[in-house]
Amino acid sequence: MATTDPVENLQALIRCRSVTPTEGGALSTLEAALTSLGFRVERMVATAEGTPDVENLYARLGTEGPHLMFAGHTDVVPPGDEASWSHPPFAAEIADGMLYGRGAVDMKGGIACFVAAVARHLEKHGAPRGSISLLITGDEEGPAVNGTEKLLTWAAEKGETWDACLVGEPTNPDALGDMIKIGRRGSLSGKITVHGVQGHAAYPHLADNPLRGLLQLTHALMDPPFDHGTDDFQPSNLEVTTIDAGNPAVNVIPAKATAAFNIRFNDSWTADSLKAEIIRRLDLAAAEGALRPGRSPVRYDIAWSERPSHVFLTRNNALTASLSEAIETVTGQTPVLSTTGGTSDARFIKDYCPVVEFGLVGQTMHMVDERVAVADLETLTHIYGGFIAKWFDHARAE
Amino acid sequence: MATTDPVENLQALIRCRSVTPTEGGALSTLEAALTSLGFRVERMVATAEGTPDVENLYARLGTEGPHLMFAGHTDVVPPGDEASWSHPPFAAEIADGMLYGRGAVDMKGGIACFVAAVARHLEKHGAPRGSISLLITGDEEGPAVNGTEKLLTWAAEKGETWDACLVGEPTNPDALGDMIKIGRRGSLSGKITVHGVQGHAAYPHLADNPLRGLLQLTHALMDPPFDHGTDDFQPSNLEVTTIDAGNPAVNVIPAKATAAFNIRFNDSWTADSLKAEIIRRLDLAAAEGALRPGRSPVRYDIAWSERPSHVFLTRNNALTASLSEAIETVTGQTPVLSTTGGTSDARFIKDYCPVVEFGLVGQTMHMVDERVAVADLETLTHIYGGFIAKWFDHARAE
Repeated sequence: MATTDPVENLQALIRCRSVTPTEGGALSTLEAALTSLGFRVERMVATAEGTPDVENLYARLGTEGPHLMFAGHTDVVPPGDEASWSHPPFAAEIADGMLYGRGAVDMKGGIACFVAAVARHLEKHGAPRGSISLLITGDEEGPAVNGTEKLLTWAAEKGETWDACLVGEPTNPDALGDMIKIGRRGSLSGKITVHGVQGHAAYPHLADNPLRGLLQLTHALMDPPFDHGTDDFQPSNLEVTTIDAGNPAVNVIPAKATAAFNIRFNDSWTADSLKAEIIRRLDLAAAEGALRPGRSPVRYDIAWSERPSHVFLTRNNALTASLSEAIETVTGQTPVLSTTGGTSDARFIKDYCPVVEFGLVGQTMHMVDERVAVADLETLTHIYGGFIAKWFDHARAE
Repeated sequence: MATTDPVENLQALIRCRSVTPTEGGALSTLEAALTSLGFRVERMVATAEGTPDVENLYARLGTEGPHLMFAGHTDVVPPGDEASWSHPPFAAEIADGMLYGRGAVDMKGGIACFVAAVARHLEKHGAPRGSISLLITGDEEGPAVNGTEKLLTWAAEKGETWDACLVGEPTNPDALGDMIKIGRRGSLSGKITVHGVQGHAAYPHLADNPLRGLLQLTHALMDPPFDHGTDDFQPSNLEVTTIDAGNPAVNVIPAKATAAFNIRFNDSWTADSLKAEIIRRLDLAAAEGALRPGRSPVRYDIAWSERPSHVFLTRNNALTASLSEAIETVTGQTPVLSTTGGTSDARFIKDYCPVVEFGLVGQTMHMVDERVAVADLETLTHIYGGFIAKWFDHARAE
């Protein structure tokens, strides 16, 4: 990697076939580039039963604070049908000002620009009065079990602390500069099982149809809304993602039925307060009984997904102000500070330091012909460069 | 078969392993007995693509009217785990006054008693001034495609007509004489598919969760009740028998979801008027839209089961009066005239002549250790004998 040129950086990374969870040479390519810039680079392999081993990378330049972290991932989703691509997904070809390849925007492009921005910063200003680190995982697109969360724990156990973090995921809906993500909703999933009594459809009084109860319970989860949104977040939203009884016999009342749900929740809630509210609604609906003559209480149990994602919101002025100013300076546009969308690895980082997310335009992520405008790579490198300079100014002034 | 002894008749029939759709010698055994009594016996094999060929039997004694039909079946459900039986399921062993075997009550026992009753009637009174026929299928416990319905069509095409029919299914909940079935509710089944738009659970505005719509539609089917019962029937009742989305991914909103339902309906409805009411409810609920902000109409389609069972009610006085009187004479008990329970082959017969159902006590039907009290066999033979005599008296008097 040429390091100061984001286009060359990105081409080198795309040509590494690092389809999750394969390293594919991507971390080694990055390691060589960062080593040449003076970073101390460490590779960390994370393992867990039932998941593939995953290679991760942590690199730090400097030993003092303030300490700025850039976080991201070099693994990419599979290319799908390679024959459907206008340009091969791992060739990194440029056509009509667009650079094609899997990971171009999600998110080898962000890494390529950040490396270029650091290289230029070092050329222009010398070593920063503080530290810059890169925390790069190979397990963001996969199960995310052997990635950012374990890498943070591993680094923290070695004594690493950070003052701020920028995640380089694609955050802009339409144009570079549209949107910074300053928070994310939480995500909580659960599965309800309603127990009934199997029987013949002609003798419902001898059976107890669990679907009646399940409909009552799911209705109670969907109505009324959990909240109407907050200053920083859209309303919490619950989706019933599946209901299953799996009963093929039209004359038979099934013995049990299940419903799974996922709720994206805002800062009105913690995962625990939300669980309590869900249980309250379910218990109330269960006590009212199912829609049937001579209603009796609904017998149900609930299993929660093991790891809820917690909501977070970053109001750190040094971080958001530095990034916003850099974006405005380079693009002339004031970015929206948003909390929309799904979860990201920022949910793990927020436990260690303030974190925001800003990267390329996400429109083609995960699609055939994923691509980035070559001009955007230069623009994002300018933004990241301006952000690095401003953040260290802000951080040292505090 | 000894013909006048219902116990011997039943033992002979149980020892034929006629697990549906196998004939197993049961119809041949019955044919020999009926031939010895002077019946003209015909065997008819019914066939249909995708179902096993099934043997059926039609036997008639006499050529004139009035014409009384007895209907039933010699096929039985499988014995299940034979080792779990106290007495082998096809041995017809008697212990402590109980005769054990698959089909003892459902319904080789009914056939055995009717044959004995006819044999005794012939011994005592000679040939009836009219006709008696037996319409016996080997496809009642199976798909019921090659059974009673086809046998009736076949006989009717040959010019057969009937004035009344007694179906010998077990109708008594607790004791012989409890209950005559004088009608049955209809049965209608359908499957609703709601079409949505698949998407990510974090971006519900880009998706359309079909489960929201499906819950609205199924709720509309369950509430309010379709009716509150009639003079002769309990309320119509709808059971949702399954709901399925089959979506394993907790973050994904599924593309479609289905619900199947079965409704047992009374004489407030025909199958057609009920379909119209269901469509009215579904269309209303669909137009109201799903439980979500900015409700939009629910897109659904419905598929009906091919053959609804139509409701019927037999108010024929000669038939119900003869049977009730015979039961009261023998047992001292006034039977309840009931329309409860599932469908039976009487739903086909009711298109040809008035039909009622009366047989043994049904408690052990389809269970391990299916059994009948030996004393009940003698009692039922007396009841059937009394019924035959009274029915011909009534019928000739009309």
